[in-house]
Amino acid sequence: MAKQKVRISSISVRDIRVPTSDSSSGSDAFHKNPDPDYSAAYLEISTNIPNLNGVGFVFTIGNGNDLVCRAIEAYAQPLVGCSLGVFTSNPGAFWKKLNDHPQLRWLRDGINRMAFGALINALWDLVSKYHNKPLWQLLAEMPSEELVNLVDFRYLRDALTPEDAFALLERRFQGLDHHVASVIAAGPPAYCTAGWSGLELDDVERRTRHAHDELKLPAIKAKVGLDIEADRARMERIRSVIGENGKLGVDANQWWGAPDAIAHMEALADLNPWFIEEPTHPDDVFAYQDIARALRPRGILIAGGEHASGAVSFKNLLRADALDLVQIDVARVGGVNELLAEILLAAKFDKPVCPHAGGIGLCNGVQQLTIFDQIRVGGQRDDQICEWIDFLHDGDTMLTPVEIKDGRYCVPQVPGFSWEMTPSFLDAHEFPNGDVWRDRQEHFALRYA
Amino acid sequence: MAKQKVRISSISVRDIRVPTSDSSSGSDAFHKNPDPDYSAAYLEISTNIPNLNGVGFVFTIGNGNDLVCRAIEAYAQPLVGCSLGVFTSNPGAFWKKLNDHPQLRWLRDGINRMAFGALINALWDLVSKYHNKPLWQLLAEMPSEELVNLVDFRYLRDALTPEDAFALLERRFQGLDHHVASVIAAGPPAYCTAGWSGLELDDVERRTRHAHDELKLPAIKAKVGLDIEADRARMERIRSVIGENGKLGVDANQWWGAPDAIAHMEALADLNPWFIEEPTHPDDVFAYQDIARALRPRGILIAGGEHASGAVSFKNLLRADALDLVQIDVARVGGVNELLAEILLAAKFDKPVCPHAGGIGLCNGVQQLTIFDQIRVGGQRDDQICEWIDFLHDGDTMLTPVEIKDGRYCVPQVPGFSWEMTPSFLDAHEFPNGDVWRDRQEHFALRYA
Repeated sequence: MAKQKVRISSISVRDIRVPTSDSSSGSDAFHKNPDPDYSAAYLEISTNIPNLNGVGFVFTIGNGNDLVCRAIEAYAQPLVGCSLGVFTSNPGAFWKKLNDHPQLRWLRDGINRMAFGALINALWDLVSKYHNKPLWQLLAEMPSEELVNLVDFRYLRDALTPEDAFALLERRFQGLDHHVASVIAAGPPAYCTAGWSGLELDDVERRTRHAHDELKLPAIKAKVGLDIEADRARMERIRSVIGENGKLGVDANQWWGAPDAIAHMEALADLNPWFIEEPTHPDDVFAYQDIARALRPRGILIAGGEHASGAVSFKNLLRADALDLVQIDVARVGGVNELLAEILLAAKFDKPVCPHAGGIGLCNGVQQLTIFDQIRVGGQRDDQICEWIDFLHDGDTMLTPVEIKDGRYCVPQVPGFSWEMTPSFLDAHEFPNGDVWRDRQEHFALRYA
Repeated sequence: MAKQKVRISSISVRDIRVPTSDSSSGSDAFHKNPDPDYSAAYLEISTNIPNLNGVGFVFTIGNGNDLVCRAIEAYAQPLVGCSLGVFTSNPGAFWKKLNDHPQLRWLRDGINRMAFGALINALWDLVSKYHNKPLWQLLAEMPSEELVNLVDFRYLRDALTPEDAFALLERRFQGLDHHVASVIAAGPPAYCTAGWSGLELDDVERRTRHAHDELKLPAIKAKVGLDIEADRARMERIRSVIGENGKLGVDANQWWGAPDAIAHMEALADLNPWFIEEPTHPDDVFAYQDIARALRPRGILIAGGEHASGAVSFKNLLRADALDLVQIDVARVGGVNELLAEILLAAKFDKPVCPHAGGIGLCNGVQQLTIFDQIRVGGQRDDQICEWIDFLHDGDTMLTPVEIKDGRYCVPQVPGFSWEMTPSFLDAHEFPNGDVWRDRQEHFALRYA
């Protein structure tokens, strides 16, 4: 930070909601989240330097987005007037200060952790922009010791020590230029869901053809859970396009307890699913272990992490040998610092980081972490994929849309986290007074009678 | 609900804070929560029937109490105008509706779960008052099938089925009058912390004498974690009062990772601690298992649960054989329904329910559950204790203070949850405009510079 001194001049937190539940378009037509309104609790940090800002946000699915906004304000407002140096002088200590706040820590995970994660991510966005580098590059070029210092190892040491982390990071610091060039030549493989539960089978087939034949995505996903025969029909239709050996993952969005998950997936095993994602409660380590032990012999791997409460949850799923695809989420935990811990844990257990994305702008955000992982930690692996969605990720929504080529993410070159939303999108979707909401009801606020 | 029809007429949610960090009086003078402001996000549900209300609250330690208030409002406000029948017709389905809300469920545990737990608890308070019974009695007299229907077994079945729960509940439904009389004759054994970290040793000794000699409490607790020699001195001073065979528990408030926990407690093992409470991260099942395997051979049991995120966390700690004292907390999880699941899990694994309490009014609240457990589920056990504190639980604070006699909780006979606060306490401590706060700064709001 040798150039001009950066000072935080103001913050804004906006409640952004898209009424996706008006129609089935792009919505997760599924039992557990039947009608989400894709939303973002959107933080922008402004500085004394014109056009230098930092953006971070929490993705939610509608109701409660306002609660996350208030929590982000509580963490971000006291930064106004501070030098950016309060963060950059020791980002690991800053993270620990938020995570261990003497009073706020009582509120634990969920809203509280998401909120300080948004602030942490906005600060990383700001720092990357200040250095005029994409976040993946800023992180990839950092000395191993600095990266190690970003992580709080207190609750991880039984599985990952600072020495382990240093060794993992040093391994690929050698030959960095080569690794960067290799990932730029062929970025993380993308995949998408074509088999939403609510769709007609012909629509499932059409979406699969588009993803497989035109976009060349190396894997396709289907939702499962409610009805074995309907799940089977959907999977068969996808198999009819991608063939017997195509990669087909399935996702239960936490629908089952362990015994049901095992029974349901055993009944679908002949369709050769690559993985079952979120078969049960996201932190339920022994349920995941039961499921892994029952289904791996049938050739089915276990994916999870989208809703995992934090790095400790990943640590235990990995210690239990109950997780094969490590689905980090960029906006649920404590931001870049905690995501780095999760990426290091995956490498320690030799499992691929396969991020959850979608929503609004989550693809933009998490690509930075998975590219960093490919360059600097886990390397490029055949079994690694990164979720992708074409909905709410275009130029109307995002200033710098994600690009997919030959079934892979293109490595972004714009400075920062590359997840700013366009001013017109933000203005139109601000809840409850933006154009989109002014004459519309909030969806699914609680109704008891 | 055969009498008059009850309708919810209004709700109020108040941000109540006590500036306990002004002085060390009653505060947890400990490293992780060095200066809490004991607080409550306090919900009162009013009805069409004069003087019939329902009270539920979340305990916090200061900052962020406002966020919990807003979350409680989101859950409670839509009840206004509804009949109480929306809850009483099927309280299990009502709980599931909050836990599985199609949009709010994205926000998971912490603030979100605490908030709907406060609403659930307020409704149970209201129903108990309507039936003119203390909550413990209302629950203890319910048929086993109705109790089973309160619980969501989806994520518990691998350890506890509805059939298991029914059998556990039936066991003590026979002879109910006898069990009630037995618990009224000798209620749950109480214990308290005398060895706060910040105290002079003479003060530790004075408090231990009061608790042991005068109040006849069968166990005493000390804080540990920062400094082995200081911990040793504190424990030795307590042993000098309670003798070699007195029950002395110690509490680390999540301070360590597993390796540190083991090393620290091995160094204190010669002082014969009964248990180590919260040695590490509250949901860290394998860290707890490592600690249990190392310390049980030294005679030290494992206590935890105060910050556990929910019933799934308890299930896994018990499945790992990593928890000996099951410290349920009345105001952190999803209210009575989820607490019942936790109590049933403890019984299934034959472990004693030993509630966490303290704060403001937590003793008043959780006594109802532990008395119910003694009557109807786990029975009266020699290894069962219930935390107790004499601070902020008196008649100035609580309408119906907890009573302790011969070292045991007296079974309360007032209708409801017995945890209403006095109007004068509420008015004086409302943040930020009550008398106590009007000329005072909020403590420990974040300061970055």
